[in-house]
Amino acid sequence: MDGVERKMVTNERKVSRLDMVLRVLALVLTLVAAIVLGMDKQTKVVPIKLLASLPPVNVPVSARWHYLSAFKYHVVTNAIACAYAAVSLLLLVVARNKGGKSGVVVMMIIVLDLAMVALLFSSNGAAGAIGIIGYQGNSHLQWNKVCNVFGKFCDRVAVSIVSSLFAALAFFLLVSFAALRLLKKPN
Amino acid sequence: MDGVERKMVTNERKVSRLDMVLRVLALVLTLVAAIVLGMDKQTKVVPIKLLASLPPVNVPVSARWHYLSAFKYHVVTNAIACAYAAVSLLLLVVARNKGGKSGVVVMMIIVLDLAMVALLFSSNGAAGAIGIIGYQGNSHLQWNKVCNVFGKFCDRVAVSIVSSLFAALAFFLLVSFAALRLLKKPN
Repeated sequence: MDGVERKMVTNERKVSRLDMVLRVLALVLTLVAAIVLGMDKQTKVVPIKLLASLPPVNVPVSARWHYLSAFKYHVVTNAIACAYAAVSLLLLVVARNKGGKSGVVVMMIIVLDLAMVALLFSSNGAAGAIGIIGYQGNSHLQWNKVCNVFGKFCDRVAVSIVSSLFAALAFFLLVSFAALRLLKKPN
Repeated sequence: MDGVERKMVTNERKVSRLDMVLRVLALVLTLVAAIVLGMDKQTKVVPIKLLASLPPVNVPVSARWHYLSAFKYHVVTNAIACAYAAVSLLLLVVARNKGGKSGVVVMMIIVLDLAMVALLFSSNGAAGAIGIIGYQGNSHLQWNKVCNVFGKFCDRVAVSIVSSLFAALAFFLLVSFAALRLLKKPN
């Protein structure tokens, strides 16, 4: 093996390791995002006035993730991305042990990585838009903010969104690096 | 030029034409999405009860796109994607006339196409999540639906989201085809 060949093999290994690291990162981040939001629940005792002439009654009110379709979508997409990250890792390990990836596998992984970019960014957008209204409310629509009451619930939503956003960026980098790798392959 | 070379050049032209068609489609669809939502405004006269003892007063109430940050984000991202589609079309036409694209231009276009996938899907998610609450409301959060009053406004939001979703799919296909093209380039 001459110097040029050795350098090419070393580069290929480095790229493959970076690919694996990004996939493991995406797996962990989407798992965290799905679990943090999927287990999110907060109950608060809120004084509610039923009649103007009576003193307010203390009523326990709960905030749960499945009350909002955007949060359901966020949990489901992160679970899908997490499962896919695990399967793609397995596929790559098997392909590596067999001595190389076929063109079909490479293409399938690029397109599915790209689908994860689309899925995760759309769910982050959806959960983020609802989160902003939750924190700030909207006076024009008379949608009141709820995070002043359910602070912990909202903080966990924010953690889930940030985690999922980094996972989306990991898939973004995976697609970019795959394209760069294909572009640089020798003619 | 032998048969194989002629076939390769014909395929390259077909791919290039498909690339152009998808870019023009993305340009038109994002332009429609930005304009439809950016010009969206509806004013309705709504009877509002100020005092229980008095009859309701008719007050004109307006729905505008810039009342919601998700809609502002949707208009801005679609405007960015539209401008980028135009610039990338120009770049490709110039590169075609100069006889070919450099590796840097190819890579830059793939990464920017991918960024448009991320941008457009996130803004569609954001606008879609708000749209669903607008149509259905949310009883848990006491966010009332508004589309029963501002029906036309909501319909235009829906048109803008669908148009932008197809543009996002066009960028998705552009990235996929670019990867496929690189994968199939002769070794």
